Amino acid sequence: MSEVIKTDIVIIGAGPVGLFAVFELGLYDLKCHLIDILDRPGGQCAELYPEKPIYDIPAWPIISGHDLTEKLMEQIKPFSPQFHFNRMVTKLERQADGGFHVETDEGEVFEAKVVVIAAGGGSFQPKRPPVPGIEAYEGKSVFYSVRRMEEFRDQDILIVGGGDSALDWALNLQPIARSLTVVHRRAEFRAAPDSVKKMFELVESGSVRFELGQVSGLKGEDGQLSHATIKGSEGEIDIPVTRMLPFFGLTMKLGPIADWGLNLHENLIPVNVENFETSEPGIFAIGDINWYPGKLKLILSGFHEAALMTQAAKHIVSPGERIVFQYTTSSTSLQKKLGVAN
Amino acid sequence: MSEVIKTDIVIIGAGPVGLFAVFELGLYDLKCHLIDILDRPGGQCAELYPEKPIYDIPAWPIISGHDLTEKLMEQIKPFSPQFHFNRMVTKLERQADGGFHVETDEGEVFEAKVVVIAAGGGSFQPKRPPVPGIEAYEGKSVFYSVRRMEEFRDQDILIVGGGDSALDWALNLQPIARSLTVVHRRAEFRAAPDSVKKMFELVESGSVRFELGQVSGLKGEDGQLSHATIKGSEGEIDIPVTRMLPFFGLTMKLGPIADWGLNLHENLIPVNVENFETSEPGIFAIGDINWYPGKLKLILSGFHEAALMTQAAKHIVSPGERIVFQYTTSSTSLQKKLGVAN
Repeated sequence: MSEVIKTDIVIIGAGPVGLFAVFELGLYDLKCHLIDILDRPGGQCAELYPEKPIYDIPAWPIISGHDLTEKLMEQIKPFSPQFHFNRMVTKLERQADGGFHVETDEGEVFEAKVVVIAAGGGSFQPKRPPVPGIEAYEGKSVFYSVRRMEEFRDQDILIVGGGDSALDWALNLQPIARSLTVVHRRAEFRAAPDSVKKMFELVESGSVRFELGQVSGLKGEDGQLSHATIKGSEGEIDIPVTRMLPFFGLTMKLGPIADWGLNLHENLIPVNVENFETSEPGIFAIGDINWYPGKLKLILSGFHEAALMTQAAKHIVSPGERIVFQYTTSSTSLQKKLGVAN
Repeated sequence: MSEVIKTDIVIIGAGPVGLFAVFELGLYDLKCHLIDILDRPGGQCAELYPEKPIYDIPAWPIISGHDLTEKLMEQIKPFSPQFHFNRMVTKLERQADGGFHVETDEGEVFEAKVVVIAAGGGSFQPKRPPVPGIEAYEGKSVFYSVRRMEEFRDQDILIVGGGDSALDWALNLQPIARSLTVVHRRAEFRAAPDSVKKMFELVESGSVRFELGQVSGLKGEDGQLSHATIKGSEGEIDIPVTRMLPFFGLTMKLGPIADWGLNLHENLIPVNVENFETSEPGIFAIGDINWYPGKLKLILSGFHEAALMTQAAKHIVSPGERIVFQYTTSSTSLQKKLGVAN
């Protein structure tokens, strides 16, 4: 287990609302670590609609999810937030001193005075393909993402799917694989045409095997795959497989948040509207994951919630300190924190 | 009295929050008229800090008050809001049908189903100079702004002040005045150097008279000025004056809002946080003018308040109609309203 990371604030979720929370908290000198299950900041904006225009961000007549994320990253840069991507928070416990112990599935441990849940619709989780008995292999020889490429070196790799993730990983892993097979149920691919072209060149040259069909069964022992059965139009064949990567898209799940003892309301976290604290003092929920009367799942509402949450978070982190509300337009003290004061 | 203007919504105040309310209301097909005491949109952003950078508008690491206003104007353009500048709402009364009768000091009459007060810190009102008895002349021969230049033709005009308003009006009114005198208590001017240079050219050529000093008294009858007494370093002199324009800056006052029968809390309007309705059904208050537990006077909070207010406003304007909450990113119907759908 790694060293304990001590911080003022752990923010769960690095979507637009989690990012803007860094800004509001930073104005009050609160330091943040952000944990996100995705491999980059932006949440749904980055994952679901990076190129799609958004029209209702105030003072942005049009902005893409990607650009919104970039602008927020630029805005919070003065506060040097620490990001932990590709992680899921698996444990959230109150400590004797009133603070929180936070653990991820990669084994990091955080100690924070305040936890801000900005998890949007929940965690993005990979869809499990309909293959009987696949659960037994998950995390041992079936993986839904590539965290360390070395685990795939000299393996018989099976990649299932026809999107960008499937094709990108086929091209990236082929050079280190013992063998690599791509299975897709259609001859058409959703992936970028250039990736498809490159893959078929590798198929031509014999470096990659392509099978039109579906995985109908798995063989192996103690979680270690040895073979996969591919069902195509001409029947079933068995091929040697020691690592399988299904890319069937992502689904949103509340995930471990359901186990943290918070009151839930239809899988949302009820909060008060004065500071967006949950039923647990010191745990706040902002953005799409929270619920209160009148709630609208708008990014701009999450921004407001981040600002009001910050006042209460500051009281918890610096008890007894007088909190002075100032404007960035007129306060030299805030401008110094932003690195723009003369 | 002019014809009655019928509309869904009257918004009092065309600052950033009033402007963004047009966007949110527009997405639900609600048509807005905005009334503002200033001569342009933007409220405090336009009047107090047009060139000053703001750092806490989400996704705008830095933006001036002027540019923020421009961006919001661009964003609401598809909804063709109607602006009424240089007006103060003097009367707000409920009608028998539950809607509202709204009157301005310029005599316009509006009939609206919903009134949204987005008046910021209140009305900007001109500061009265410390001249004994000046009240008796206000509105008859002493004016704090120029609404119709014709009222100044062939008059003996006295302009008091050293800022841009004073100098701009000196230059604009001189060609139509019988005589024009500028009085300022210092030899230094805050106005643009170019305007100061132009004024002193007119002083050189004898078209404008400049006196260093202060106005210490007024003479006249029934509100009509005949002379003003100017106190300089060499004593007092009387000059003929039939129109006086003091430009001593603006101050914020709640103004007539205090008389509309709303509950007030330290000159702010308490609202519920579900839809930001006031104690009077159908009258909403958003932005700096409202109050609720946790309230922060942030522009971004006003944006959120505008969005939640809109849901309730739509219920009032279109009772019984099912309200569908949609996203601009994915709804073709919203994109058509914004003029961006294919």
